[in-house]
Amino acid sequence: MAARIHNFNPGPAALPLPVLEEVKEEFLDFKGSGMSIAEISHRSALFEGVLNDAVKRLKRLLKLSDNFRVLFLQGGASSQFFMIPMNLILEGSSADYINTGSWAKKAIKEAQILKKAHKVIASSEDRNFSYIPKGFSVNTDAAYLHITSNNTIEGTQWPSFPQAGNVPLVADMSSDILSRPFDAAPFGLIYAGAQKNLGPAGVTIVIIREDMLDPASLDIPTMLRYSTFAEKNSLYNTPPCVAIYVVQLVLKWIEETIGGLGVMERLNREKADLIYNFIDRSEFYKGTADLDSRSAMNVTFRLPDESLEKKFVADALKEGLGGLKGHRSVGGCRASIYNAVGIDAVRSLVDFMKVFAEKNG
Amino acid sequence: MAARIHNFNPGPAALPLPVLEEVKEEFLDFKGSGMSIAEISHRSALFEGVLNDAVKRLKRLLKLSDNFRVLFLQGGASSQFFMIPMNLILEGSSADYINTGSWAKKAIKEAQILKKAHKVIASSEDRNFSYIPKGFSVNTDAAYLHITSNNTIEGTQWPSFPQAGNVPLVADMSSDILSRPFDAAPFGLIYAGAQKNLGPAGVTIVIIREDMLDPASLDIPTMLRYSTFAEKNSLYNTPPCVAIYVVQLVLKWIEETIGGLGVMERLNREKADLIYNFIDRSEFYKGTADLDSRSAMNVTFRLPDESLEKKFVADALKEGLGGLKGHRSVGGCRASIYNAVGIDAVRSLVDFMKVFAEKNG
Repeated sequence: MAARIHNFNPGPAALPLPVLEEVKEEFLDFKGSGMSIAEISHRSALFEGVLNDAVKRLKRLLKLSDNFRVLFLQGGASSQFFMIPMNLILEGSSADYINTGSWAKKAIKEAQILKKAHKVIASSEDRNFSYIPKGFSVNTDAAYLHITSNNTIEGTQWPSFPQAGNVPLVADMSSDILSRPFDAAPFGLIYAGAQKNLGPAGVTIVIIREDMLDPASLDIPTMLRYSTFAEKNSLYNTPPCVAIYVVQLVLKWIEETIGGLGVMERLNREKADLIYNFIDRSEFYKGTADLDSRSAMNVTFRLPDESLEKKFVADALKEGLGGLKGHRSVGGCRASIYNAVGIDAVRSLVDFMKVFAEKNG
Repeated sequence: MAARIHNFNPGPAALPLPVLEEVKEEFLDFKGSGMSIAEISHRSALFEGVLNDAVKRLKRLLKLSDNFRVLFLQGGASSQFFMIPMNLILEGSSADYINTGSWAKKAIKEAQILKKAHKVIASSEDRNFSYIPKGFSVNTDAAYLHITSNNTIEGTQWPSFPQAGNVPLVADMSSDILSRPFDAAPFGLIYAGAQKNLGPAGVTIVIIREDMLDPASLDIPTMLRYSTFAEKNSLYNTPPCVAIYVVQLVLKWIEETIGGLGVMERLNREKADLIYNFIDRSEFYKGTADLDSRSAMNVTFRLPDESLEKKFVADALKEGLGGLKGHRSVGGCRASIYNAVGIDAVRSLVDFMKVFAEKNG
């Protein structure tokens, strides 16, 4: 067995060890085919089995009703930022956005670039995105309301999703999908880059309600229409087969080893509480997000000064705790504790934080 | 060691066994990091080392001059079909296309969808794309001349590239890149989905001459501009790290184990000659492409009737020879003999073809 570190990377991030071991085990001969998963045809029964199993598991885990389609795209959430307004804001309509951080801003920027009508109805930029806005009102004729369910860089998360009446919610769930159960009914579209809770970088999951597929205009390039992927079961062209296969194994792990999203949420809550409770009792560490907006996925915190933060990250790595540097745009420290990060890793981190504070406080 | 078959898949296709073994070997602990390649940050020195090494090796192998940039994108060649006209056909300009098969047609269709001016200056559709056109003339003011260097479905390949004067060539080299040396100087842009000669599905290589980056309009979404990828060394957002890593290993294999593109071409020629010479002497098998247009990558052939073709494909698989079915749009049989398919696989195939013809002729 290789020496593995505790991996707090923000994404690409830790994957469940049993998943990595299974990939390794069958990498030269996938299911007795005599070929690697990287070498089999995307049109083979073997690969379609993988893809269809992934779709079924995701639908079961999220309790999606039959009018939702699960699609596998490429290009990351960054490509959804433009595909969404391109496909869903039709001539004469406008969409609402809530600006809760760096990724939300990028989503808004792409609607601007496309000159698609949109309104930012709430923002937490006034206090460095340290909270989730409340008390906004959604335009009743909006094409959709776009939110970022978890703000990876700023360490905030929607505690529950906003009420938008008949306006479909569109959510970037890249950094907290499958971390907790939620009611998908109010959502028109959910998207997530895989590289946090789902699998390796290189595949993006799009969950789209069938009525959102209708408007797609024919002057949109084939590969940029959601309907292309829906009509061809994500096989219009060659999909990222290896990444989809790893996603399938991760979904299987959540379903069969963990036991579903209820358990997953409890485990995630336990991990987050462990760090936040410690930080709250500490004079040395200081959380950056408002208490009621804290993320259970990305715990962002500061130390008394930047040189200590640098030392913290470096010393932690020496102790086998990796990926604790905050995003370069905001500084500080960040522990990303996605689904695949175990409670043992978080305990080790808190132990290290105690010792570090004693030594350097 | 797993039981491996001889893999003649058209893509995703056979990968070099030493590459697969190296991926497997270090899959739980990449270079002593204590993390899988699927878990490390795309902004880590470790991953940037992989990416930069891949760029350097590709530049050396193709003897690219300094004014070429190597970019890693997602979305397959199918996404390049629209990104090229979107970025490179400016207001008032027009591009030339040569229609040599199914993929060329799809490229042309995306220029149409975008309502970008373009002219199809030559086509081989009159004889089912069984040849590469000659004697066409390129519009001297064309933004580019688009060609498909190898036609995977129809089994044809440009024996040498067309002369287009000052008009930059733009080529889809998805199915023959790195199979032979060529002079890159006349090219403005070369693109290739990885899943034939480069690596697993999920990453697209774009080689672009720097002067082609200039025109990119600011009303193009960020992720659809070549300049975004050029400015950020393909790290504007999270790239498909695992796929890029496998590409790097494949490039290393071509450079260090094979010995470069000169040797690669000789090996590919040897494999192709073996099958084509056998087919030409046979009364039973019949090649579909004109002699001077035959592909060294995809050998397409027919048997006396469709039921025999079906039996051929099924019997071959029982003998450990996989992937010999022709593309569903054209029928027949096809042996894809990309870089990673060894001469031993081709010898086994020819031996099988002999026996099959004797039994069923």
